[in-house]
Amino acid sequence: MKINFEEIEEKSLPNFKGGEKSMEARMYVDEKHKIMRGTLQKGATIGLHTHDTSSEIIYILSGKGTMIYDDTEETLLPGECHYCPKGHSHSLQNHQNEPLVFFAVVPEFGA
Amino acid sequence: MKINFEEIEEKSLPNFKGGEKSMEARMYVDEKHKIMRGTLQKGATIGLHTHDTSSEIIYILSGKGTMIYDDTEETLLPGECHYCPKGHSHSLQNHQNEPLVFFAVVPEFGA
Repeated sequence: MKINFEEIEEKSLPNFKGGEKSMEARMYVDEKHKIMRGTLQKGATIGLHTHDTSSEIIYILSGKGTMIYDDTEETLLPGECHYCPKGHSHSLQNHQNEPLVFFAVVPEFGA
Repeated sequence: MKINFEEIEEKSLPNFKGGEKSMEARMYVDEKHKIMRGTLQKGATIGLHTHDTSSEIIYILSGKGTMIYDDTEETLLPGECHYCPKGHSHSLQNHQNEPLVFFAVVPEFGA
């Protein structure tokens, strides 16, 4: 099935996972997945959170991201990918002027 | 953790899933996921296959794809996404002159 993000309403999610400012996202959700295209404007962050029952895979479309992954920091550029396996923690942050746009998949594996 | 596809060797996979020509892919694999950036040149296809224990989420980066999904056909453009839930079948095909480049995640859920 096709997911056309342009046909999904964009929602602004303030303080997502306890982060700063808002994440804007067009999101498809079923019982096994969240599939989204998200944007973090300058200064916006997704707060640090642990994937206890799911993983997350993020592909950077534009902008430059800073990822806190467990106790490390990663810089993410367009075409690069971040993988947070089940049991790990991360926080995506945009410290640049340019919006950070990304595609993300969150598969749900259960406990 | 960061996955930088440029640092992963590109492999040419002929007749992938019984398809035509080859898929070129840079792929990260662990027990729960396949995460890849793939290319289909003109005339290349991924053969029709069923996701019995996994799903697949494909995000189109460039080019134009034709997707056979169960008994329907979808056209996929850059920025669009295809989702094949567990239990469904699909075949990605490139009938255009331009290469079809995509990002894909295959989460493994088990039987």
